[in-house]
Amino acid sequence: MTIDNLDLIKQISIASPTKIVLLVMDGLGGLPHPETGKTELETANTPNLDSLAMKGICGLSDPVGPGITAGSTPGHLALFGYDPVKYEMGRGVVEVMGIDFKVEPKDIAARGNFGTVDKNGLVTDRRAGRISTEKCTELCHLLEGIEIEGVRLFVMPVREHRFAVVFRGEGLAPEVSDSDPQQLGVAPKTVKAHRATARRTAKIANEFIAKARKILAGHHPANTVLLRGFSRRPDIPTMGEVYKLKPAAIASYPMYRGLARLVGMELLETSADIKEEFAVLKKNYAAYDFFFLHVKGADSAGEDGDFDAKAKIIEEVDKALPALTALEPDVIVVTGDHSTPALLKAHSWHPVPVLLYSRYCRTDRVENFSEQACIMGGLGRLPATQLMPLAMANALKLSKFGA
Amino acid sequence: MTIDNLDLIKQISIASPTKIVLLVMDGLGGLPHPETGKTELETANTPNLDSLAMKGICGLSDPVGPGITAGSTPGHLALFGYDPVKYEMGRGVVEVMGIDFKVEPKDIAARGNFGTVDKNGLVTDRRAGRISTEKCTELCHLLEGIEIEGVRLFVMPVREHRFAVVFRGEGLAPEVSDSDPQQLGVAPKTVKAHRATARRTAKIANEFIAKARKILAGHHPANTVLLRGFSRRPDIPTMGEVYKLKPAAIASYPMYRGLARLVGMELLETSADIKEEFAVLKKNYAAYDFFFLHVKGADSAGEDGDFDAKAKIIEEVDKALPALTALEPDVIVVTGDHSTPALLKAHSWHPVPVLLYSRYCRTDRVENFSEQACIMGGLGRLPATQLMPLAMANALKLSKFGA
Repeated sequence: MTIDNLDLIKQISIASPTKIVLLVMDGLGGLPHPETGKTELETANTPNLDSLAMKGICGLSDPVGPGITAGSTPGHLALFGYDPVKYEMGRGVVEVMGIDFKVEPKDIAARGNFGTVDKNGLVTDRRAGRISTEKCTELCHLLEGIEIEGVRLFVMPVREHRFAVVFRGEGLAPEVSDSDPQQLGVAPKTVKAHRATARRTAKIANEFIAKARKILAGHHPANTVLLRGFSRRPDIPTMGEVYKLKPAAIASYPMYRGLARLVGMELLETSADIKEEFAVLKKNYAAYDFFFLHVKGADSAGEDGDFDAKAKIIEEVDKALPALTALEPDVIVVTGDHSTPALLKAHSWHPVPVLLYSRYCRTDRVENFSEQACIMGGLGRLPATQLMPLAMANALKLSKFGA
Repeated sequence: MTIDNLDLIKQISIASPTKIVLLVMDGLGGLPHPETGKTELETANTPNLDSLAMKGICGLSDPVGPGITAGSTPGHLALFGYDPVKYEMGRGVVEVMGIDFKVEPKDIAARGNFGTVDKNGLVTDRRAGRISTEKCTELCHLLEGIEIEGVRLFVMPVREHRFAVVFRGEGLAPEVSDSDPQQLGVAPKTVKAHRATARRTAKIANEFIAKARKILAGHHPANTVLLRGFSRRPDIPTMGEVYKLKPAAIASYPMYRGLARLVGMELLETSADIKEEFAVLKKNYAAYDFFFLHVKGADSAGEDGDFDAKAKIIEEVDKALPALTALEPDVIVVTGDHSTPALLKAHSWHPVPVLLYSRYCRTDRVENFSEQACIMGGLGRLPATQLMPLAMANALKLSKFGA
């Protein structure tokens, strides 16, 4: 089943001057510290978030579904109200969004590795000895010179041996197999079409690979390319179309900016500094009616397994919060795109604390913003895709469904 | 997304002598009074409802989905277990149900306004100066005399300038555009078919409009008709088919009676008087195994913004409740079709308190029937469509699914 209801929302959404701020602390949810029994959020001193939780309504949200650990892309798509399974982003597309490349609707994107093959053409290293990013950049520049009829090529370094390639042209299709064999001692695979309409794309990909190998012949250990995750960006309606919002994103990391652009947000310039992000919100407050403010640090600290650093980032957000509440938005939503417990050093499936404040929110008895308290919240446990409809309703931006 | 599971229920439902009473206080859910912090339901003195909540299991239900404000039609369809988005009722159908017209499966219904056009045929008043209901009735009678080949016409007054028209005949289709331009200074629109199978319907609608204008020529300001919301009732299985129930409705307002009839309930005669409604229940208790008892007053008071009046209606229901519990139904469900907070003077998106009592309900720790207490209820927060399966289960009317 699909867990968004964008078709319905599109019918009943109305433009209005009310404003919504969606504050996302990436990887917010956590797990209790073995010594204290308290999560990162419960450990952090957060008087401002607690006060907002007291006035607002809280709950726990599942980005994709109970038990499903969400990547950053599905986690954010869900927060923006889009069913992350229906609008699945291929790996290639996510990779190029992550390097701030503007993917066009017909582009085919793939992830690439520089790799090593021996004299028999068998893969001996899928990462070409982890060449430097500088070397990768130099090689990408060489590969971008490849000419293929009817196609414009973009070849972009990511990091070390990783790069991305975009094929732009008419009549391309993403339904092709990888060339990366994902194992050693075998030859790179020929890219094959999964359906007839993708045959030309497979031919073009193989032509690219063949020409790349010629160019790379003298660049051992980076003497071949291995491609995977051929994909096209999904045909996704913009937030303007669905919600009739004029949305803006305050996010510094390219992947989140790319995703925000994909759903039609305007991108505001900011560093990753939390105070600066809130200042950017204030400066641009008059010009938009929806703001997505993204704080990356909580997730990074969680992935590092640094419990205290994650709690500290949450405290930093709490200190900055009055700059947001002073603007008196009609609706404030504070949540995360998924959990990243320091204990697991990774994204996890645990539902994410969420707090929604508006003058019409029908408050509950939650008195502080924490995983434990949110269990008792009036929002209950809900799919993350339902937060946007709730925010829209609380901003009085949805008309009645049915007579 | 579809939120009912009627196909499954139909497979496992069994007829049995147990009885279910669904007591609906229209617009039950509210928002806290700014001075007391208590909602209408929390303000009302409701010892009987509280006692039932203590013995039963409580929760909060979403008629359509979080954030979605339900009209009365989708709100009730959900309570009867039908996905209100899948079984969407067109405006025309709702209008004729509201005047107690028995819509047949192939009928095409539309809402109409009497309006005024100037000598150039441009609309100068979409409401014909709000003519009296008497005048409207007179004009409808004239229009019902129109003859169109292969079609039987029903033209019925609603109120003031509003009327409804039903086209009955073979091969009609609802996929046609409105003639009402929804603005002044332009001519009424020609009704157009959205698909080939609706061409004849468009032709018939235009013929009706042309003939109506001739008849109305001397009745300025009501010298034209403006039609909108052409629709057919959805092909909906009856409660008898799905649940194997013999259901009866105790409701006085035509729209709710129409809806109850649509899902196969028998209609019992009653006024809007709450005591009388409970007396009708008692009188007919032996003859049915499912009762829908509808109390309209809470919604009307909420829409009027009359907090105290709404609380008073709830108290009236509470006083009448012993007449219901004395019958010892196997299952009692008390809830609303949506929230209508006096604070908003309108339907709202807030989830609706629900209480289910049966000897097998597995009670929770909720000790009074209120929005706040229901947050902690054992039913959690659930789609309203799931209440009927729960009621059926508690009445031991559902067999095991799977071996």
